[in-house]
Amino acid sequence: MPTNHKPLILVTNDDGVTAPGIRALVEVMKELGRVVVVAPDSPQSGMGHAITIGDPLRLEPVRVFGKVEAYQCSGTPVDCVKLARDKILHRKPDLCVSGINHGSNSSINIIYSGTMSAAMEAAIEDIPAIGFSLLDWTFEADFQPAGKYVRQIAGQVLKHGLPGRTLLNVNIPKLSASRIKGIRIARQAMDKWEEDFQERKDPRGKKYYWLTGKFVNMDPGDDTDEWALANGYVSVVPVQFDLTAHHAISFLNDKWNLPHAKKR
Amino acid sequence: MPTNHKPLILVTNDDGVTAPGIRALVEVMKELGRVVVVAPDSPQSGMGHAITIGDPLRLEPVRVFGKVEAYQCSGTPVDCVKLARDKILHRKPDLCVSGINHGSNSSINIIYSGTMSAAMEAAIEDIPAIGFSLLDWTFEADFQPAGKYVRQIAGQVLKHGLPGRTLLNVNIPKLSASRIKGIRIARQAMDKWEEDFQERKDPRGKKYYWLTGKFVNMDPGDDTDEWALANGYVSVVPVQFDLTAHHAISFLNDKWNLPHAKKR
Repeated sequence: MPTNHKPLILVTNDDGVTAPGIRALVEVMKELGRVVVVAPDSPQSGMGHAITIGDPLRLEPVRVFGKVEAYQCSGTPVDCVKLARDKILHRKPDLCVSGINHGSNSSINIIYSGTMSAAMEAAIEDIPAIGFSLLDWTFEADFQPAGKYVRQIAGQVLKHGLPGRTLLNVNIPKLSASRIKGIRIARQAMDKWEEDFQERKDPRGKKYYWLTGKFVNMDPGDDTDEWALANGYVSVVPVQFDLTAHHAISFLNDKWNLPHAKKR
Repeated sequence: MPTNHKPLILVTNDDGVTAPGIRALVEVMKELGRVVVVAPDSPQSGMGHAITIGDPLRLEPVRVFGKVEAYQCSGTPVDCVKLARDKILHRKPDLCVSGINHGSNSSINIIYSGTMSAAMEAAIEDIPAIGFSLLDWTFEADFQPAGKYVRQIAGQVLKHGLPGRTLLNVNIPKLSASRIKGIRIARQAMDKWEEDFQERKDPRGKKYYWLTGKFVNMDPGDDTDEWALANGYVSVVPVQFDLTAHHAISFLNDKWNLPHAKKR
């Protein structure tokens, strides 16, 4: 990046434009460049990579971060990135950061995460992108200890860029500043949620269900994001959006015995 | 699979339980095993891997596929799979199929697809899973030519299984049966949508936006799903939900010069 060029930084999230986590993120990003915020006007947790096809979208300027240019959008986190790119920013931003999410997006949680999907959408647009999450889902979460690592990681990405078609999934343990041991580059742990829907009855006697679940880590590796977080580190997982299971291509060609299989 | 065991097949989709595409899928699956349908009660296209956290879910039996056990759910495609597993099926199904989607889920479309996210959710639960899509988004789409390939591919998966932590993304060209050339195992093409939001004004003069876009294939490979489809083949992409960009881990450890980097 040329030194005379002030980075343009797009900030979004999935908890909505009024969440404390995005406020903490904006404060750090203001030190690093010119910030534009485009974030959902309401909480959008668990939206994954949803986009709004069947409804129109609203986009309104808001003044909630002092002098920082900011907009709220009626759509999903991914809609926010798409709209920012097409209607608000007049050039490709140098960085897109999403978060700081209230709650973990480590391991399999990335799949369900609006925070990470917003960052992924930016990466698809060839914008260096990072999703940040703090392992504390409460409104009162303390984002102070996270600031140092958010600054350091965003600074590294602005300086060195990222390999093509990748983004970063950063999770920060719920610890005081002095107890966080540092940063670990990690892989996504292989684990899952075990669902247990709570069944209730409404006042008219009809059943309904609440999603609840228990997180099950089945991955014993010490190179995973779950290991890093459990051991007091900030986890940084490089993430890709080529979902091809390349190793499975030859399995299918062999087993299915297809006449048209390409020989390689 | 033991020969005396009739496969249990979970069918879902994202176009909703009344869509012609799921009807076509159920008809084929009835030939292969015992079918249970759990599908959204309304269209859920573009929902990605969204889950319902902030609202309760409804689940109602419906009789829309003759004698086939079927339920409609108020949630997303992923919710349907989670609810089916927890509340309806009394054992892990032998196969989960999602679709047949009205419209393509090839290449980058997989990221936004409720059809594919439902299949991915099943794969996370270690259930062999396939998402099927026809390259025709109209209600009147002709699913007849697809049937042969849906039967063949589901049969292969029931017979041979899939490598661990993978699922299949199957796309079928909009061609007559005689013009489809066969099946190609492929990788996800690297392409994207270029957004162009249409700006309009409501009757009160306030702006709103409709998402529109142009699909841009930047990938010249002849081993991609886009190539297969453009050349008259059914494309089958093996898909994974480990999103780690493993090749980028050493880049980050090298460039960032972290004191805690693991040496490997």
